[in-house]
Amino acid sequence: MTNEKKKYWVGFDLGATKLLAVVFNDELEIVAERRRKTKAAEGLAAGFKRIRETIEQALDAAHISTADVAGIGVGSTGPLDLDKGIILETPNLGWGETPLKATLEKAFDCPVIVLNDVDAGTYGEYRRGAAMQARCVVGIFPGTGIGGGCVYEGKIIRGRRNSCFEIGHIQVLPNGPLCGCGQRGCLEAVASRLAISAAVAAAAYRGAAPTILKNAGTDLAEVRSSVLSAAIEAGDKTVEEIVRDAARWLGIGAAAAVNLLAPDVIVLGGGLVEAMPNIFADEVRNVARKRAMPAFRDAFRVTVAKLGDYATALGAAAWVQTVLLAGHDKR
Amino acid sequence: MTNEKKKYWVGFDLGATKLLAVVFNDELEIVAERRRKTKAAEGLAAGFKRIRETIEQALDAAHISTADVAGIGVGSTGPLDLDKGIILETPNLGWGETPLKATLEKAFDCPVIVLNDVDAGTYGEYRRGAAMQARCVVGIFPGTGIGGGCVYEGKIIRGRRNSCFEIGHIQVLPNGPLCGCGQRGCLEAVASRLAISAAVAAAAYRGAAPTILKNAGTDLAEVRSSVLSAAIEAGDKTVEEIVRDAARWLGIGAAAAVNLLAPDVIVLGGGLVEAMPNIFADEVRNVARKRAMPAFRDAFRVTVAKLGDYATALGAAAWVQTVLLAGHDKR
Repeated sequence: MTNEKKKYWVGFDLGATKLLAVVFNDELEIVAERRRKTKAAEGLAAGFKRIRETIEQALDAAHISTADVAGIGVGSTGPLDLDKGIILETPNLGWGETPLKATLEKAFDCPVIVLNDVDAGTYGEYRRGAAMQARCVVGIFPGTGIGGGCVYEGKIIRGRRNSCFEIGHIQVLPNGPLCGCGQRGCLEAVASRLAISAAVAAAAYRGAAPTILKNAGTDLAEVRSSVLSAAIEAGDKTVEEIVRDAARWLGIGAAAAVNLLAPDVIVLGGGLVEAMPNIFADEVRNVARKRAMPAFRDAFRVTVAKLGDYATALGAAAWVQTVLLAGHDKR
Repeated sequence: MTNEKKKYWVGFDLGATKLLAVVFNDELEIVAERRRKTKAAEGLAAGFKRIRETIEQALDAAHISTADVAGIGVGSTGPLDLDKGIILETPNLGWGETPLKATLEKAFDCPVIVLNDVDAGTYGEYRRGAAMQARCVVGIFPGTGIGGGCVYEGKIIRGRRNSCFEIGHIQVLPNGPLCGCGQRGCLEAVASRLAISAAVAAAAYRGAAPTILKNAGTDLAEVRSSVLSAAIEAGDKTVEEIVRDAARWLGIGAAAAVNLLAPDVIVLGGGLVEAMPNIFADEVRNVARKRAMPAFRDAFRVTVAKLGDYATALGAAAWVQTVLLAGHDKR
């Protein structure tokens, strides 16, 4: 069990582009943090070094030694083997199979739990954000792909070894556009930031999105969330319609989760939602309300995440704290 | 708490057309049973009398007195208020709000728990059927509508007051056929027995389903599961294609559940599946495998329910036993 004197918890957000280490006290208040770029292309060894340094620098900033850390929770980009705490091979990082848990436990001599980043983010919102202590929370985080998570009666719903809640890959449009997973008509293929950016770049090329053409040209990689929201504010109606269309598809996906699990709260998060919170909340709420079974229709709310990009780090720290203090299995 | 001497449990299946009371011993073996028609049209008072008599007759057949019953679990047609144990108003029964739990507790002087019938059936298959002790089980029971249930780490997943897992009402076909819930393109609208029977009756009218026309005419109420399977065996290719189409839609719905929850087992049950088990298991398996995320694709099996129409009664009895013996909340 944990040492009574160790009262600090590290939450770590391991993304394809960004590393964030946050030191929390026992009340899950932020003591210090450190951000760095992932620079995944430099390879696994360099990646581990940067991860370790980021945590060490956050501890330094908090004036805390490694010996004061009770546990580290990592919310990581996937796919993962949760029990082993391994990142499986993914083009996101290009590191091959990555033994995250074992390496960090050795480096910091404390228990480490690895979670899916969206699971951790959803759990963070459940513990300290927009879904505090709700019986059932569904988190939907549209980005390059679309991640989902579910906290049911205080526990993160998971698969046998992997995380689950791959809401981005439920079929919403038979014979719809091709998805990265190889299938057609997945939610992700019509409602992710990538799908939106592709449609918007095409609109820019056609001359239907003048602000986009001016600010980002026709390169969809340049059509970021902030570029989209700026274009909508400047009056690019086609851009707004494309974003609203995507949000309506998200509502169809959200309704599937509502009809299956009757959650109390749907939390929408991620950079896309942060940039255009009202569009996403309104469209998802309207469509999900309409599509949900009458008995569930007024039993859930749709809200925007409150913790911003701290959600994953906070959720990972809160989860490792909960699991270790309860003496649960260390998953 | 339960009296140590009381070692019998009653499982009761309350359907719109059929009542089934089964007496189980502590090992959940069947001691005796009694079936009657519901005759819901005779009204609430007559309905309660028939329910009470059915249980009493099953106890008589088991040579057991009311005093020996530790608890009664009822798997009921819905919608329900689970905490109060009330059947809410439904055209299925036409009884208005029905205080099932309170009435049976008074009549039999023992704890009564009311569950959704499909939840109970899924739990029954988890305890003694096709999904014994699986970590996560999804039950899909196509009938007049399409019911679903989920047992996750030994617990029945439920909504705040209601059951949930309304898999029949997730949208699978945008702007698809009108569903009984008022929306379009629900799974139920394209894959229920009612949807199949309607398409088959139309085929019979067109002359494309000669065996159906001979055995059932064009009245879809006559196109029962047994009529469908007989026509397929007789070589009505159009009927087979209609049933396979419906089963493929079920596979799309099943895949949504797989992508969200990564279950270990999907159990297909109900009269339609019992009549044509291979068609349903094969098509659902093939489509769900294809549509599921690669990580989940080989991690689940699709199987047909084993307990037949005992699943609901057994599941309800097993659940009341588990809840009471564990001293859980009596839900």
